[in-house]
Amino acid sequence: MSESEIETIAMRPAPLPLDTAHDSEARLTPEFVAAVIEKVEDGDTEGARALVEPLHPADVADLFELAPREQRQALATVLGIDDLLDADVLAEMNDWVREQLIEVLTPSQVAELATQLDTDDAVAIIEDMEEEDQRAVLRAMEPDDRAAIEEALSYPEESAGRLMQRDLIAVPEHWKVADVIAYLRSNDDLTTDFWEVFVVDIAHKPVGTCKVSWVIRAPDDAPIADVMAREQTLIPAEMDQEDVALRFQKYALVSAAVVDRAGRLVGMITVDDVVHIIQEEAGEDTLLLSGAGDGDINEPIRFTVRTRLTWLIVNLGTAMVAASVVGLFQGEIARFALLAVLMPIVSGMGGNAGTQTLAVIVRALATNQLTSSNTARMIGREFRVALANGAALGTLVGLGTYVFYGNRDLALVIAMAMIINNLVAGLAGVLIPIGLERARVDPAVSSAVFVTMATDVMGFFSFLGLATLWGLGG
Amino acid sequence: MSESEIETIAMRPAPLPLDTAHDSEARLTPEFVAAVIEKVEDGDTEGARALVEPLHPADVADLFELAPREQRQALATVLGIDDLLDADVLAEMNDWVREQLIEVLTPSQVAELATQLDTDDAVAIIEDMEEEDQRAVLRAMEPDDRAAIEEALSYPEESAGRLMQRDLIAVPEHWKVADVIAYLRSNDDLTTDFWEVFVVDIAHKPVGTCKVSWVIRAPDDAPIADVMAREQTLIPAEMDQEDVALRFQKYALVSAAVVDRAGRLVGMITVDDVVHIIQEEAGEDTLLLSGAGDGDINEPIRFTVRTRLTWLIVNLGTAMVAASVVGLFQGEIARFALLAVLMPIVSGMGGNAGTQTLAVIVRALATNQLTSSNTARMIGREFRVALANGAALGTLVGLGTYVFYGNRDLALVIAMAMIINNLVAGLAGVLIPIGLERARVDPAVSSAVFVTMATDVMGFFSFLGLATLWGLGG
Repeated sequence: MSESEIETIAMRPAPLPLDTAHDSEARLTPEFVAAVIEKVEDGDTEGARALVEPLHPADVADLFELAPREQRQALATVLGIDDLLDADVLAEMNDWVREQLIEVLTPSQVAELATQLDTDDAVAIIEDMEEEDQRAVLRAMEPDDRAAIEEALSYPEESAGRLMQRDLIAVPEHWKVADVIAYLRSNDDLTTDFWEVFVVDIAHKPVGTCKVSWVIRAPDDAPIADVMAREQTLIPAEMDQEDVALRFQKYALVSAAVVDRAGRLVGMITVDDVVHIIQEEAGEDTLLLSGAGDGDINEPIRFTVRTRLTWLIVNLGTAMVAASVVGLFQGEIARFALLAVLMPIVSGMGGNAGTQTLAVIVRALATNQLTSSNTARMIGREFRVALANGAALGTLVGLGTYVFYGNRDLALVIAMAMIINNLVAGLAGVLIPIGLERARVDPAVSSAVFVTMATDVMGFFSFLGLATLWGLGG
Repeated sequence: MSESEIETIAMRPAPLPLDTAHDSEARLTPEFVAAVIEKVEDGDTEGARALVEPLHPADVADLFELAPREQRQALATVLGIDDLLDADVLAEMNDWVREQLIEVLTPSQVAELATQLDTDDAVAIIEDMEEEDQRAVLRAMEPDDRAAIEEALSYPEESAGRLMQRDLIAVPEHWKVADVIAYLRSNDDLTTDFWEVFVVDIAHKPVGTCKVSWVIRAPDDAPIADVMAREQTLIPAEMDQEDVALRFQKYALVSAAVVDRAGRLVGMITVDDVVHIIQEEAGEDTLLLSGAGDGDINEPIRFTVRTRLTWLIVNLGTAMVAASVVGLFQGEIARFALLAVLMPIVSGMGGNAGTQTLAVIVRALATNQLTSSNTARMIGREFRVALANGAALGTLVGLGTYVFYGNRDLALVIAMAMIINNLVAGLAGVLIPIGLERARVDPAVSSAVFVTMATDVMGFFSFLGLATLWGLGG
């Protein structure tokens, strides 16, 4: 295939598959992954490399994740460290898969790869290593690169200081547009990858920011201070990456200046470094609410078992509390076993309703939509929803019970219990996460245990208790 | 306060509160919201406007969402349509809150606001209106703007065609860098807001893309075709916005060219239009899994009740199936009521384990980490996790039952039931969402019902069935 033919193919719109490597959702096809693995197993190095060569680094990283664990090292050897398996591929790779690969590299190989990356990507690779390996890698780096990494590592984990890169464009506020353009066009040492130009005062504090397109579209004699936007979101280097992501999202930022405690410009964060955090933070609630930890499918299985089992044992405690409530009514159940048949309906429906409210509240808290300004309104809202749903479900189940078992008292008792438990579910679903948030506990991590306990205990207690009061088990 | 003082304050790093309006997480404080509302109620227009004036459009939009529903129209009047409540604020506003405001505006006011926005933001406002109002607004617009909106509306909802803006920079592939810079600097009609320059052939098909910073850093005589990147992600105008978001995320894009069916450049999507989709799509699984719909806290309450009740009624069906399984064992329960006390532990723990697996699998599917290449591996992985957790929990509960009730047979039965139900939970949690995904049903929407039914039914059946076989209720 001639070079121009390759280009033509590469430029086709993506959903018409670029090539046989991708399906319609831009995922690598199983046939492609299998073909590469087969060539690796057959020792057909050239064949494997020819398949992988046209891929984007993000796709090569996916290939490692999709390949069976025991094939990954052979694949790395075939692709070549610092060749097709380059620094960009490592930066895109899942942490666990990367760790497994890095274990077989020498410190100088890791140092060589890390040197080619932006500081933030290099830090992401080095921060996960054992301390001893970390030191060996740092020793193998050039002093400049080492200083940059060491400075980044001095900031807390998951902070803006670790996300930022230090290569950025800063210009003094008294310059005109022509000065800025001349500086950008003539200076060989500057980075070529930037989206915005930061304008700083003599103390190197940011005073404004300019899209590159504003600079190029402005007249030569315009002062840069007139072109720049003065309002900008400054990110303190200590800020947690979740807060960084929320700000990028709220203010639709593409890049932002990072400042030290004195307010001086020390780095820049760009949206491509933040997009995966936005996605992870938004998606993690599903996993946290279920007690699945960070739910990484590449994590070693012993960690997965440990995380999930811890949560299950905590839930076992709450299940035993709920069971002990049922235990109070053993006599009634022995005399009227139908109570045992119907009681899971009351507790289960309460659990479902509580989970709904919980999901809404946890998301609203995570996206900063629920603040102390509208907490009271939201509690009232969930109470009304719970009342409406409880009344509808209670009526439905009560009528059904009456028609099916012909027992009016039983029908009334289960209807009332459903209404009570829906209200418990609604209130627990809204009050527990808000209470935890105020107590500075992540509501996504701990709410579900308490809400389930509330709906289980009150589901059994309201139904069996009312049944006893009504003399149903008598 | 002098203007320079205001600037000084506005430039402070964000976590030292910018002003009294924001808390440490950049949310408006309740005191600030209350102060604005109070001034609106008191008829102090100047006071309210003075408070709101320094805010970012995203914050003004938040103010409307946080203000009580009945105050929002008065607030709009005080801030002034097309004044402090401008098009940018509307573009940032929650759909429901915006709809409520737009109802009280005239078509020409809406048209005026929409004209000031990028096509994609204008479309977002207009697409939610009733068809009749839509036509009235379009009639009130200038022919050019109307044509742009009408073309966007001709694409399917939630497609790239609706997200894209038509103002972009495209240059012919034979130009040199100097030509591009001269064109950008001299032409008054061009947009000033762009991150990348698209390079097109004579048929207006994109052949490459250039960051603006690459253009400005390249020598005058370099052909633009040598500066541009040839590999680029082309977005077909019909592509679903979720797929657009996945591509932006996977390839860390800041902007991307949108092409029509013939491959011609028709628009551009920028990351700021996509960031909220990434966040919404990632966060919606939590809501969908719980049956809370899109969980919008600003949605009218009747929609909320309807969405959640529909889901609860579907779950009621599964709860009744599970109850009918218990019904098969009424005789045993009447003779040995302890079975009714312990059975919720077996079903509940299975439910928790199933939810964990489900959350992991749904997230892995949504992020394209789980594909047909690693499905078999993932099923094996979940089976092993389920076996380990089932064995641990079964042993724990079995021992506890033996110690507490001194009944060895009961202890064995509950231990076996726990192991069986954990395996059911693990397999249902992985097979059901994968099966639904293959059948092109969104696994986040429907999986939970089936998984819960499996763990409830099998929890009751394995425990009560084994107990009956063992003669425990005999």
